[in-house]
Amino acid sequence: MSDQVKSTNITWHHGDITREDRERMNGHRSCVVWFTGLSGSGKSTIAHAVDNLLFERGCRAYVLDGDNVRHGLNRNLGFSPEDRTENIRRIGEVAHLFVQAGVIALTAFISPYRSDRDNARKTAGDDFIEVYVKCDLDVCEARDTKGLYKKARAGEVKEFTGISAPYEEPLQPELILDTAQETVDESAFRVLAVLKRRGIID
Amino acid sequence: MSDQVKSTNITWHHGDITREDRERMNGHRSCVVWFTGLSGSGKSTIAHAVDNLLFERGCRAYVLDGDNVRHGLNRNLGFSPEDRTENIRRIGEVAHLFVQAGVIALTAFISPYRSDRDNARKTAGDDFIEVYVKCDLDVCEARDTKGLYKKARAGEVKEFTGISAPYEEPLQPELILDTAQETVDESAFRVLAVLKRRGIID
Repeated sequence: MSDQVKSTNITWHHGDITREDRERMNGHRSCVVWFTGLSGSGKSTIAHAVDNLLFERGCRAYVLDGDNVRHGLNRNLGFSPEDRTENIRRIGEVAHLFVQAGVIALTAFISPYRSDRDNARKTAGDDFIEVYVKCDLDVCEARDTKGLYKKARAGEVKEFTGISAPYEEPLQPELILDTAQETVDESAFRVLAVLKRRGIID
Repeated sequence: MSDQVKSTNITWHHGDITREDRERMNGHRSCVVWFTGLSGSGKSTIAHAVDNLLFERGCRAYVLDGDNVRHGLNRNLGFSPEDRTENIRRIGEVAHLFVQAGVIALTAFISPYRSDRDNARKTAGDDFIEVYVKCDLDVCEARDTKGLYKKARAGEVKEFTGISAPYEEPLQPELILDTAQETVDESAFRVLAVLKRRGIID
């Protein structure tokens, strides 16, 4: 082992591995794809569909959503305006770390406040793709995939976006998906088309 | 585009991409390599040296350290015991996300409290490799790479580990590096040897 060490002791002096080095190894660029929309609009489902399509193409991506963040990193945060802001701030920072690591970060959170999303965009730098997952409240409420709208209407869940807390629509998102009109696959392929157009993937 | 969508609309129904899927694509397993030790002991330098060696071998890895975490995700935390605990908790959670994404997470933080490191280990699950970067306080202080020891001795920096705040040595780390005795390259190759022995990399 000692010989091996001596023969290769210049390796790390080349400097730290950069984002560009990692992108080159991966064969694609990295970015944040930020899905925003009401509960039940389809953010997480579409993000995972995009993740699947990227995986099939040999790309490195990862979905950050309520399942892996709200019960972990952000489990000490609630749903007050301040906590929502801190929730999104942390997610923006983690997404940025993934981008630095060469990974396409797909984030799927309601992220109701425009200023919070704008801060996430600033954190990410140039490569931030805001995707508004548009779906009327009544359609989301009819789906009620997690039974949360029913609880919100009954007053069992407080500060619920669309019912008892505001949702601020994106003004200039890079993409709008109308999930009342298009299938998950159609939406996912539209995201992929944006990634291609922006030169993130081939 | 519409035809293409219809012809591939089964892709995402295979289920979400798993950690194992990503590890298979990468050609290696993922894990957390948790470097702990005094300021100036060499944690970050060694972590980046390991990152370089892994990159040369085509492995996906990423260093989380003060440079990219303390000024970003954890910039709203100080150095009180409570804030240090929250600092390490968040880092443990982010490292876990990287592991789920198939990436070898190399974390380089003083992480002075044993209980905080043990919690990070619990968060990471089985694949947690604690590396104690051992270096006597007087050697670290003589190096004083960031000039922090001088400030701590002058009382300009409060709660400084080793001077005015405790460091709890690991009881059973997976690896101990003696950086007063070995070179950065030697240390980095010793970490690589552990990764090989545990089947993380070939």
